[in-house]
Amino acid sequence: MSIAVFYAPNAKDFSYLSEEESFHAIRVLRLKVGEVIHLLDGRGSKYATKISAIEGKKVSFGALELIESEPKPSYTIHLYVAPTKQMERMEWMVEKCGEFGIHGIHFFASKNSERKEIKLHRLEKTAISALKQSKNLYLPEITGLHTFKEISAKKGEEKLFAFISNPPVAVLSKTALKGKEYHVLVGPEGDFTSDESATLKNNHWKPFSLGKSILRTETAGIAVCHGLHILNID
Amino acid sequence: MSIAVFYAPNAKDFSYLSEEESFHAIRVLRLKVGEVIHLLDGRGSKYATKISAIEGKKVSFGALELIESEPKPSYTIHLYVAPTKQMERMEWMVEKCGEFGIHGIHFFASKNSERKEIKLHRLEKTAISALKQSKNLYLPEITGLHTFKEISAKKGEEKLFAFISNPPVAVLSKTALKGKEYHVLVGPEGDFTSDESATLKNNHWKPFSLGKSILRTETAGIAVCHGLHILNID
Repeated sequence: MSIAVFYAPNAKDFSYLSEEESFHAIRVLRLKVGEVIHLLDGRGSKYATKISAIEGKKVSFGALELIESEPKPSYTIHLYVAPTKQMERMEWMVEKCGEFGIHGIHFFASKNSERKEIKLHRLEKTAISALKQSKNLYLPEITGLHTFKEISAKKGEEKLFAFISNPPVAVLSKTALKGKEYHVLVGPEGDFTSDESATLKNNHWKPFSLGKSILRTETAGIAVCHGLHILNID
Repeated sequence: MSIAVFYAPNAKDFSYLSEEESFHAIRVLRLKVGEVIHLLDGRGSKYATKISAIEGKKVSFGALELIESEPKPSYTIHLYVAPTKQMERMEWMVEKCGEFGIHGIHFFASKNSERKEIKLHRLEKTAISALKQSKNLYLPEITGLHTFKEISAKKGEEKLFAFISNPPVAVLSKTALKGKEYHVLVGPEGDFTSDESATLKNNHWKPFSLGKSILRTETAGIAVCHGLHILNID
């Protein structure tokens, strides 16, 4: 059997698992004191350790041995999305982007948004589970709901937004530069309003096309994340 | 309101909608005789027509006017997948590949397959709905369940299979040639056995890597489809 992996962002400071991860260790996996486990801090490090105590609902662990680490990547991807009505679609997007590897997923409300509030906890759980499954070492930060104004005024190295127009603008791979800190906006199903597009252009966001097909919001998010990884393969 | 779109593969020979599409027109959209509808044949053509009669559960339509057509694409994508236990994951894959555009999705059973039978009807419905939503003009054919033997012996122009190894082989974008008729195999979560990999290599399937992250089956399928589209953008 493979070794169980847990998410422990503060493993270096606190030598016990969170309530949720402890529950998973005790009730689902039925682990015992002395068993080896792996810990991910979600910031590039993976540790091996042993369960040192199980007290009530709390799993404590012993000394940490660093077994894998990844330096800061040469590019980072932050995705900004106007969430869909069905939260299931956003969960899928978080899971798939998490599998490909992503650094942040941020939700915002725009004029045509279908959803004006969002609960992040379930999405964070989805991201943690994708982190464990994919063997990636960076957990994306998930934030929101932001206002469109806040997002459009954001500073950033390489700022891009998905733009539907006829004739279409250039595609992502011809618009984005390599090795950057990417910030990419994907609008709602009803698209950005022309006022919003103008605001973005004025704030130095570059428009790009996702091609001829009309993609759903979550598909556009996945396409951006996967497309930027492909662009950065040497 | 935008004009309702229906899938009518035989519109040139039979001037009525299928039972399912008729139901959708009458019961869901409540369309009436004389209303304009659009038809997709799933083979590159889109027509405008008018509802000429509604008799019981059957919608008939009048003369067809070709309003959009797409010549045979310069490359085609056929994906071969060992289906996951949860059919929901395969439905998502069909939907997303359908949005990006794909020509065939074929299911097969291999040694480590989690699923030894598959019902295609729901997947076909998902593909039709993705076709309408994405404004693509080609409906993928969906077939299976095939045996591994049958698939591995297949002839084809550009045959590739996703291969997990350490160190990894070259990625898809460095392995596949442009403008081909692609046939790409994605194995089960437990991967191909070494016998199966050897059989594929002997039958001139080229191995490629999907990168460092471990992707779920459906994510691998989406990555292949999206990656081949990116490769073929000029």
